[in-house]
Amino acid sequence: MPAQNYLKTARPCLIVGSVAIDRVATPHGQSDNILGGAASYAAIAASYFTQARLVGVVGGDFPTAFHRRFKKHGIDTEGLQIEKDGKTFYWSGQYHENFAGRSTLEIQLNVFEKFSPTLPTTYRQSPYVMLGAIQPALQHHVLDQLAAKKAFVLADTFDLWIKTTRDDFDRLLPRVDLLVINEDESRLLTGEASLISAGHKLRKMGPRMVVLKKGEHGSLLFHPDGFFAIPAYPVTKFIDPTGAGDSYAGALIGYLASVNRTDFAALKKAVAYATAAASLTVESFSVDRLSKGGRKTVDARYRELEKITRF
Amino acid sequence: MPAQNYLKTARPCLIVGSVAIDRVATPHGQSDNILGGAASYAAIAASYFTQARLVGVVGGDFPTAFHRRFKKHGIDTEGLQIEKDGKTFYWSGQYHENFAGRSTLEIQLNVFEKFSPTLPTTYRQSPYVMLGAIQPALQHHVLDQLAAKKAFVLADTFDLWIKTTRDDFDRLLPRVDLLVINEDESRLLTGEASLISAGHKLRKMGPRMVVLKKGEHGSLLFHPDGFFAIPAYPVTKFIDPTGAGDSYAGALIGYLASVNRTDFAALKKAVAYATAAASLTVESFSVDRLSKGGRKTVDARYRELEKITRF
Repeated sequence: MPAQNYLKTARPCLIVGSVAIDRVATPHGQSDNILGGAASYAAIAASYFTQARLVGVVGGDFPTAFHRRFKKHGIDTEGLQIEKDGKTFYWSGQYHENFAGRSTLEIQLNVFEKFSPTLPTTYRQSPYVMLGAIQPALQHHVLDQLAAKKAFVLADTFDLWIKTTRDDFDRLLPRVDLLVINEDESRLLTGEASLISAGHKLRKMGPRMVVLKKGEHGSLLFHPDGFFAIPAYPVTKFIDPTGAGDSYAGALIGYLASVNRTDFAALKKAVAYATAAASLTVESFSVDRLSKGGRKTVDARYRELEKITRF
Repeated sequence: MPAQNYLKTARPCLIVGSVAIDRVATPHGQSDNILGGAASYAAIAASYFTQARLVGVVGGDFPTAFHRRFKKHGIDTEGLQIEKDGKTFYWSGQYHENFAGRSTLEIQLNVFEKFSPTLPTTYRQSPYVMLGAIQPALQHHVLDQLAAKKAFVLADTFDLWIKTTRDDFDRLLPRVDLLVINEDESRLLTGEASLISAGHKLRKMGPRMVVLKKGEHGSLLFHPDGFFAIPAYPVTKFIDPTGAGDSYAGALIGYLASVNRTDFAALKKAVAYATAAASLTVESFSVDRLSKGGRKTVDARYRELEKITRF
């Protein structure tokens, strides 16, 4: 499963974010005590393309099986802080009928409450960085520690931060090369109803590139050299959307790091791989399907995406 | 403007539906006494590919300028009944903030109330037929008059008919080759939340092919030989969505008639032309932009769609 035979061009990518134990209920079933957290999904997706360096925090209760899962994917966990006496971030969520929205039933921040992402010395040179949707102040803190001033930075966010820490978030945007954002967040930030207008406006707010995620409707890429649109992979076995956006972002940064390029052509391919990875994630609870599918399945879906979009 | 130099393969296409005088208000402005009706939009879009034969009804008040508009596009209006003493179907609608839904402010059915689509003898051999979203009973009536038993039939519909005349509609489905339907209607008909599942289920209800329209998110094609997805054209000057779906369907049937093919490859191209035509329609009130753009603009947008979807 660990794709150790990475391309010669491959650079490591740094992934910072939450690592969690989840309980997820959907209209069709539920699953408890499963591996969750944005960084978990992202790192596993990225691991299909290059070595992922994981920065996060877990408690002494974090199951050995989850540590092993990271190891199997060749993920560097030197940056995963383990607070022996604490408990791992716990999230319990419920998806509504037809997956129209979700409610958080319970959050226990635990060790995540005082999480301060500290980069091990070796991580500071990481040329590709993904900032998961943690508080903007912490995202700034990560960037402040980077020695590689030319690192390519992808940032994800979360409507809560746009609403509660807008100043920090606005200051983050110019430090970001690629903002990955969903429909509602893009409208919240720009006030634009049209996604096309929102995308262009977001680029003016700082990030050179913007990817707008639309769930089952695919995603849009706004790059200095052009616009690109891709549908979602036509999933028929939809189980749990948790982590879809995180695997999307992880595969995206992982692919860019693997080819060590960020031009328009590379970004389009990265977005297609991201789409493929996210489609696996929704086909099971937790990272199960994404992890078991392997690079081979991601590649097959990438080719299928080529096929279903050509005319 | 009339593209008289149609391909040698081109067959005429029959378009049946409403012809109306509209008043449209959007969050950004309004326009009164403008050409509307599904068949108007569809026939003009189709006219870029082949000769459109229009079946509908208007009153004595139908402006000469509108008649001229059809003529300029080379549309055969032998089937357009003119009831000298009646008034044309009038529709007044209001789009809500951010175009999230619309309300009908006023409907005067007028001559449309007793509309019975009668095909002129020459029309009965039409090998390509588009049934606009009129009552299913009238759609049946059109099909009953066709002499060409192998005509390729595209049908559009409307949530009202699914709700009020479900039996007639269900009986129509097996008589249809291609059902063109929007997201909400597809969910209403199938009960499926997933559009992919809805598309497959619709095909089992009768039509060999289904096109699922998703507005700004593009459209999906379910064909016996495969699945195809296309984003919307990235419109920035969004004025009025009225008629977008009708121009989409008109361009689709028009293109198929022009190449006289309905295989998967032809359908994919038809869907791309349909997307291009619909994008013009939303850039103005009424058919103005669609009509002025000409085949050249439709072609340019088709090529742009190729460009923004390739990776």
